Amino acid sequence: MDHGGDLLSYERYFDGELIDFSSNINPLGTPEGLAEVLIKGFESLESYPDIHYRKLKSSISEYLNCKVENVIVGNGAVEIINNFIIPAERVIVMTPAFSEYKKRAIAHDKEVVEISYRKDFSIDINELTLVLEKDDLLILGNPNNPTGLRIEKKILLEIYKLIINIGAYLLLDEAFYEFCPPDYDSIEIFKEYDYKNIGIIRAATKFFALPGIRLGYGCASKSKVLGLSKIELPWSVNALADIAGQYIFKDNSYISKSKDYIENERNYLITELSDIQGITPYITHTNYILIKLHNWDEECVFKFFLENGIVIRKCSSFVELGNNHVRIAIKDRLSNLQLINIFKILN
Amino acid sequence: MDHGGDLLSYERYFDGELIDFSSNINPLGTPEGLAEVLIKGFESLESYPDIHYRKLKSSISEYLNCKVENVIVGNGAVEIINNFIIPAERVIVMTPAFSEYKKRAIAHDKEVVEISYRKDFSIDINELTLVLEKDDLLILGNPNNPTGLRIEKKILLEIYKLIINIGAYLLLDEAFYEFCPPDYDSIEIFKEYDYKNIGIIRAATKFFALPGIRLGYGCASKSKVLGLSKIELPWSVNALADIAGQYIFKDNSYISKSKDYIENERNYLITELSDIQGITPYITHTNYILIKLHNWDEECVFKFFLENGIVIRKCSSFVELGNNHVRIAIKDRLSNLQLINIFKILN
Repeated sequence: MDHGGDLLSYERYFDGELIDFSSNINPLGTPEGLAEVLIKGFESLESYPDIHYRKLKSSISEYLNCKVENVIVGNGAVEIINNFIIPAERVIVMTPAFSEYKKRAIAHDKEVVEISYRKDFSIDINELTLVLEKDDLLILGNPNNPTGLRIEKKILLEIYKLIINIGAYLLLDEAFYEFCPPDYDSIEIFKEYDYKNIGIIRAATKFFALPGIRLGYGCASKSKVLGLSKIELPWSVNALADIAGQYIFKDNSYISKSKDYIENERNYLITELSDIQGITPYITHTNYILIKLHNWDEECVFKFFLENGIVIRKCSSFVELGNNHVRIAIKDRLSNLQLINIFKILN
Repeated sequence: MDHGGDLLSYERYFDGELIDFSSNINPLGTPEGLAEVLIKGFESLESYPDIHYRKLKSSISEYLNCKVENVIVGNGAVEIINNFIIPAERVIVMTPAFSEYKKRAIAHDKEVVEISYRKDFSIDINELTLVLEKDDLLILGNPNNPTGLRIEKKILLEIYKLIINIGAYLLLDEAFYEFCPPDYDSIEIFKEYDYKNIGIIRAATKFFALPGIRLGYGCASKSKVLGLSKIELPWSVNALADIAGQYIFKDNSYISKSKDYIENERNYLITELSDIQGITPYITHTNYILIKLHNWDEECVFKFFLENGIVIRKCSSFVELGNNHVRIAIKDRLSNLQLINIFKILN
């Protein structure tokens, strides 16, 4: 199990509809009105999407508050990550991390260097300094998956200084950005550096509850955007993803409602889970929680939840975590309650 | 202009709706009932597509009459071509050809060898024999774009024999397959060879009039499919493309109606265009026609059509064709009539 969200593989083990706690999607669903916009956009399927994605990029630049010339789009965040990896010399990954960082690097025959996060999942800059070389591509989840932690602003600026000094490149995967408590906005921070040697990737996937539509986007220097354009597949963003991206980012009420909802449920879930014997939830800044299991292995807990109609994320594919961690999404209150109750009867 | 279908770049030059003769899409539009199927499928946008595309691949295997284990899917044919190129040693392209063969190879730092088609756009097997080496990837459009010709079955089998003897790999881009007069089906032909060293790519883009949905698919050996799975991006096919692909291939009446329609209009257009002074249409097996201009360059003809509300495809991006060729799609009778009339007044 390298990814969450693969419900089809588990349907036959439960007689009823499974609740998916394995993929981390906004429980409020997609922005209201999107269906209508997409229906109106159906005729666009009969034409190629704009090969330059002019309207889409303009919508994203407004949302991110950056220039259009800095905007990148792709078929999900993972395609953009892939495109950053292609011209790289060597890829540095901090673990545990989203498995695709390493997989995409291997797919393109790159040397991969893995560095571990500290035990508390913070970054040891000294170790990074020892490893990083010129032209390296350092990929960091911010917040990181599966740990759920944002990089502290101070630390991020230190890492960036190191990147610039060495002549490496920093790629921040911020696919979960909007779920985080407001602290800093890396797109704002690195604007004054013209995004020199830094790329920041975000996505409609998680926060806008659109994993099926495949829309990733991001921000990089003008010259990097130009370089990527030579690598990007033509028309890689589907016409309906293009249309969705011209709509969703303007829905401010959905955006603030979602942020409030997640913050509230995050506090609720963490409090409740902390009270349950035999498990320890880690601190999280986002919409998922990594949980350490003290008395069981992941397989046993996974099966127990599955028997009760819930799919959670086993974490042994993150090798450093062994077989005693699971990850759960933060969902709606009713589902969260069910999850808590199952954890309680597990004991 | 490397691709057709970029209407947005030309909208401002004409006061009214442009007719797109630059991209080669089935003029009958998408299969009836598809919109309804997609609307029902909207909720799928809130989940990840099946990472293994089990239902989609099963639908394609029925349509292609091959085993599920031989089916590949991708974000348009061009993504699949790209994935075949990644592990290749050297890429051999016959020109003129779809520009992405070379571009994708360059994006992945591959050596590209270009061989010209003969003057009549047929293949010189002797030249191919001289050039081809072990582990080469030979990409052939079948029918080829922009020329419109299918490879004769006899020649294709000779090329395949050469490929096997040398230990190279043949990739047939058959994105326009269904438009061709019925002659042979390469997926049927190479079944008995278990698709050893051959991949065949097709797409929903052209024949099913779905360039916006991005759905390419194809057929290769079981071991090649496994190899590609290590390169393919996860969830690269959008959830709605997944759903469309479970529906469109079963619409036999749409399929036969479209084939008849194109054959009829192809005959009509070729006859009419052949009668016009100053231009020569090439023989075509598909839904587009390459036209040689005797008295004008492409730019002048392109502008004249644009002033009359029609976008045609300039062909100077196919370097071998110089600046005196244009390509037009075969569209509905009314549009075809308009096109013919404009060619007539060009004189």
